[in-house]
Amino acid sequence: MNRILDIRSDTVTQPTDEMRKAMAEAIVGDDIMGEDPTVKRLEKLACEIFGKEAAVFVTSGTMANQIAVMVYSKLGDEVIVGSQSHILNLEVGALAAICGVQARSIEVVDGHYDAEVIENAILGKGIQSTDTGLICLENTYNLNRGLIVTTENMKEIKMIGAKHKIPVYLDGARILNAAVAEGKDVKEFTKHVDALQVCLTKGLAAPFGSLLLGDKEFISKARKMKQRLGGGMRQAGIMAAAGVVALENMVSRLDEDHKRAKTLAHRLVKIHEGILEITEVQTNIVSLNLGFLSIDGKTIQEEFLKQGIKVKKIGDKSYRMIIHYQIKDEDIDYIADVTEEIIQRYKK
Amino acid sequence: MNRILDIRSDTVTQPTDEMRKAMAEAIVGDDIMGEDPTVKRLEKLACEIFGKEAAVFVTSGTMANQIAVMVYSKLGDEVIVGSQSHILNLEVGALAAICGVQARSIEVVDGHYDAEVIENAILGKGIQSTDTGLICLENTYNLNRGLIVTTENMKEIKMIGAKHKIPVYLDGARILNAAVAEGKDVKEFTKHVDALQVCLTKGLAAPFGSLLLGDKEFISKARKMKQRLGGGMRQAGIMAAAGVVALENMVSRLDEDHKRAKTLAHRLVKIHEGILEITEVQTNIVSLNLGFLSIDGKTIQEEFLKQGIKVKKIGDKSYRMIIHYQIKDEDIDYIADVTEEIIQRYKK
Amino acid sequence: MNRILDIRSDTVTQPTDEMRKAMAEAIVGDDIMGEDPTVKRLEKLACEIFGKEAAVFVTSGTMANQIAVMVYSKLGDEVIVGSQSHILNLEVGALAAICGVQARSIEVVDGHYDAEVIENAILGKGIQSTDTGLICLENTYNLNRGLIVTTENMKEIKMIGAKHKIPVYLDGARILNAAVAEGKDVKEFTKHVDALQVCLTKGLAAPFGSLLLGDKEFISKARKMKQRLGGGMRQAGIMAAAGVVALENMVSRLDEDHKRAKTLAHRLVKIHEGILEITEVQTNIVSLNLGFLSIDGKTIQEEFLKQGIKVKKIGDKSYRMIIHYQIKDEDIDYIADVTEEIIQRYKK
Amino acid sequence: MNRILDIRSDTVTQPTDEMRKAMAEAIVGDDIMGEDPTVKRLEKLACEIFGKEAAVFVTSGTMANQIAVMVYSKLGDEVIVGSQSHILNLEVGALAAICGVQARSIEVVDGHYDAEVIENAILGKGIQSTDTGLICLENTYNLNRGLIVTTENMKEIKMIGAKHKIPVYLDGARILNAAVAEGKDVKEFTKHVDALQVCLTKGLAAPFGSLLLGDKEFISKARKMKQRLGGGMRQAGIMAAAGVVALENMVSRLDEDHKRAKTLAHRLVKIHEGILEITEVQTNIVSLNLGFLSIDGKTIQEEFLKQGIKVKKIGDKSYRMIIHYQIKDEDIDYIADVTEEIIQRYKK
Repeated sequence: MNRILDIRSDTVTQPTDEMRKAMAEAIVGDDIMGEDPTVKRLEKLACEIFGKEAAVFVTSGTMANQIAVMVYSKLGDEVIVGSQSHILNLEVGALAAICGVQARSIEVVDGHYDAEVIENAILGKGIQSTDTGLICLENTYNLNRGLIVTTENMKEIKMIGAKHKIPVYLDGARILNAAVAEGKDVKEFTKHVDALQVCLTKGLAAPFGSLLLGDKEFISKARKMKQRLGGGMRQAGIMAAAGVVALENMVSRLDEDHKRAKTLAHRLVKIHEGILEITEVQTNIVSLNLGFLSIDGKTIQEEFLKQGIKVKKIGDKSYRMIIHYQIKDEDIDYIADVTEEIIQRYKK
Repeated sequence: MNRILDIRSDTVTQPTDEMRKAMAEAIVGDDIMGEDPTVKRLEKLACEIFGKEAAVFVTSGTMANQIAVMVYSKLGDEVIVGSQSHILNLEVGALAAICGVQARSIEVVDGHYDAEVIENAILGKGIQSTDTGLICLENTYNLNRGLIVTTENMKEIKMIGAKHKIPVYLDGARILNAAVAEGKDVKEFTKHVDALQVCLTKGLAAPFGSLLLGDKEFISKARKMKQRLGGGMRQAGIMAAAGVVALENMVSRLDEDHKRAKTLAHRLVKIHEGILEITEVQTNIVSLNLGFLSIDGKTIQEEFLKQGIKVKKIGDKSYRMIIHYQIKDEDIDYIADVTEEIIQRYKK
Repeated sequence: MNRILDIRSDTVTQPTDEMRKAMAEAIVGDDIMGEDPTVKRLEKLACEIFGKEAAVFVTSGTMANQIAVMVYSKLGDEVIVGSQSHILNLEVGALAAICGVQARSIEVVDGHYDAEVIENAILGKGIQSTDTGLICLENTYNLNRGLIVTTENMKEIKMIGAKHKIPVYLDGARILNAAVAEGKDVKEFTKHVDALQVCLTKGLAAPFGSLLLGDKEFISKARKMKQRLGGGMRQAGIMAAAGVVALENMVSRLDEDHKRAKTLAHRLVKIHEGILEITEVQTNIVSLNLGFLSIDGKTIQEEFLKQGIKVKKIGDKSYRMIIHYQIKDEDIDYIADVTEEIIQRYKK
Repeated sequence: MNRILDIRSDTVTQPTDEMRKAMAEAIVGDDIMGEDPTVKRLEKLACEIFGKEAAVFVTSGTMANQIAVMVYSKLGDEVIVGSQSHILNLEVGALAAICGVQARSIEVVDGHYDAEVIENAILGKGIQSTDTGLICLENTYNLNRGLIVTTENMKEIKMIGAKHKIPVYLDGARILNAAVAEGKDVKEFTKHVDALQVCLTKGLAAPFGSLLLGDKEFISKARKMKQRLGGGMRQAGIMAAAGVVALENMVSRLDEDHKRAKTLAHRLVKIHEGILEITEVQTNIVSLNLGFLSIDGKTIQEEFLKQGIKVKKIGDKSYRMIIHYQIKDEDIDYIADVTEEIIQRYKK
């Protein structure tokens, strides 16, 4: 095996040939002035797919998330977030630093948001309490798990939000994985939130960008916040062209990634039963626990690398493998074989 | 019984006659210019009692807490706090709004800070993580419980802080209750933190103010942050004079409050066993659960009030009673009698 | 002359005997719980005097100013302020640090706010511009000058605000000086703003506190922001009692301060013509320029101090003298004599 | 004339064919993981050109500016900026909203920063003052003027900064225009600042991005702040490839733009003397005042548009024309002809 299998993330993918061609030929204009036709085309396409009135193309999911919080909440509000969510743990403290909001973190067990827990997290109106400005969901939940939040659960939380007049936002970086895995139109999920973002750079393999979607007023304000964050771009149509390809051609094939992830998971539990929970492999993410090996966590990672496999270390001896379009059936076999070999060699 | 027994909090106390006299006769100057002799006297006295180099007199415990965070952390840092702490839940979102820091909340079970949990809450150095700027302890912990954090536990956390070069701050609003209850010099607690605040307006019965203490450099920066928050005062010596009385004359008598709280607790459990956990009544706070009554929570509170007792509702049918210097032995009897009567009348 | 004449500021005054008596006897309650009767009495009295619906008693003018900005503006807004105003220069960067707003500073020539300049400072609606959230006036203007902003000028600016739907706030730390100097009811000034603050600790000689006034909704929000800043007080009625005396008994006598300031100014210009502009001495503040002396600025200040006079250095060889209730006619003579003597000795 | 001459800005340019080719063939990796070789190549190239240790590729000049402020200053600091600078007026209040710093704006007359004015703007150390965290220069200064700040002037300001231990940052969006116009190596300018940014999307015609440069420690912190703002990109090498072309091939030709701008300016003053100041046309920006026409400002703009020329309205009857690589000699003639015709028709 000569090439490297990089399964640390689905963000590491190379743009497809079709994307490269689209970028090279893209018709572009000054996007800060609102004049890039390809950006507009991408935003319009996203509105149709996700069932929202308006959209704005931004640099990253982090930027989209923070913009949403900035638009929906005011200085000093609380924002309810899952304790394992990206917006809390992997955005460099931006909730406080940039939005000036306080995270009210709640446990989300097995990808299920508990309505009662959320309602209790909405503070009272006492003079020492602050307002709850936003409820942030994440679907698929937990970037090291990829758990599906069901449409029923999302609906339930939306009702809590509506009851308390608190908007509900979805960090849907991998919401298309959830929709494809559930065999549902993604709008069945997104109709239960006021706004959402989706990443083009994960399973969809585009080199750049996320889309933030909501109603017209929200997106109008979001454009200004994007500018405030320095997200204003000039001839962004180059990148948007790849995004159009991603949305048009790369969605339905996510199913292949999920199948391969499940295949891999089944192979791995056969090798060693406690290595993972099959029910947790719901989309394209496989997390495994090699706590039963005699070598340390870093050495395990190096053993994989020696055989051409890059995995992400997510705990002491835990690893994440994400399956994406550059990983084929034979690669799954190879990954399983290598894992088996490492296990055999180093089992306590 | 004609007078009202207000046991909602120990903040409701009237200043003592001695405090009133001290205030009337206080020698004062312009405190923003650093020229109020009585303020200086109070700050010096506090340094001696709590074993710190320097102190600054501020409006409230909330102000002291936020100043400490402002001095010790930078925009966007994380601050580790207990999930039931005042700084997180009862300061109007100030951590985010004013300090621009993100709360990293951890569970503190039975007033014990778990060193491993805290160490895990200190984030890594990855590009998506933010720095941990401060560890905030609270002692006594939980304003509805008054649990004592032991000196051993505080020492353990200080060592974690030292290992990671993260300062440790104590919200010691009621630290004197902890010290008196443990029969220890308060310095045995405060030596394990870099800085702390103590409230004069709780068990000590002063009408106004808190003291923030730490080393000289910390307090020098704190004075500027106090000014930024609008905490600059002119002839503050008036209020400081009462604070001097509070520190000189009101500390040792806290023991009476604790004894009365325990007496009350023992009477209450005799009436109905599940009403509270005796082991939880460690200082001057008694919390009781009347979930077994047939009337609703608000009505229970009104029943107490009809008989001249003001209690704080802290949950569905849970109530807080705080014993302070205006509550005497006979009041304890009366409170127990009234509680018993309500229970007898409305027991399911 | 044995006693020190401290004319650095009108904040250095001692509370009057009447204030001390009122404080000693004040009826008090827990102000955070909204139960201090003396605080309520002070707030009600202020509403009547300044013609506003509601008021809240706070620690300082800085706190009042920042609360007003927090209530009226949102994160990232611009706030229009005079380039020599207290809110911009002497509040430790709080506009940015605490309110998250950007100061848009304008020149205010001779205490006159230019309506056209303000209108131009209100930014457009372009995607790179931010909203203007508030116009902040200051009257008297410039803490080293005490210039009166006329009622006509205030009305004019209010109309600009109304046209653009931007509230107008008044830092009226010394607005009573302006009203007394103009011989007008202070409501003639305050009716042209949505909200204002007035300091009790300046010419009125109270030891503590400011009042923030506006409509009920504004003050309701302000109470929460006060709490966020740590401005929540317990038995604040002690200090409020002095405030009541200040508002009831100390306002009309400001006229004496103004007369004495003018007397002093006239004496000074007779000694040396260019020392100040008589027309600039409009209230209780006299600023003088001793640039024509041969000794350096610090030495000049020390010369005053040697003869028992404390003055504030506000520039290279410029000084501020503020006349307050502890400065009598004979003191004015003495100050003029000392100044003359210093001039004679050190004139180039 | 069929095509539109868009001279509103130099940001409206289309990428060159060479850029498109470079983008299509770019070798890319995951830039958040620090693995995009083309991004690294661009950053290295920039270090050589601008004489700095390290560089980071970011979305925009606004993002670069705000990151620099975030790294160099702390919450509540003051930042000294020119009153006509981009960072103050065209970044949606980000200085306050995102960095939490207060702008201290100073006049910059004819592109000259007055050292004394800057030194006076550095506040004292009083308890009511805040620290000055950063001095921000802009060169060329004023996006509607394009004035050159001389190397001597920059040196002088750097010395003020050094004296007070305050870093000096350069918003060098168009610093290459200044260098080319002065016939100097750009390092002659950049050696006088601690850090700077340069835009690839202005005269250099790249479709995307800016470079932020400074020492290694600064850039290391900047990478984290970039991530916080949501500026993290995945396969950013696509865009970086165009940036490499911009820096390698588009710099020296800026001289053509300057010559054409001067040619246009000379033609315009011949038509009507007061239309502009020849000495103000120092780089690629021509601003003209048509206040002497009888039609209103918007109509004038439409008259230009009718004849295929897009100009930016920057005042009542003032317009900006920016010359860039898509504007040729014959276009200059055409623009002058059209302007002359409009003037003849509508002169009062």
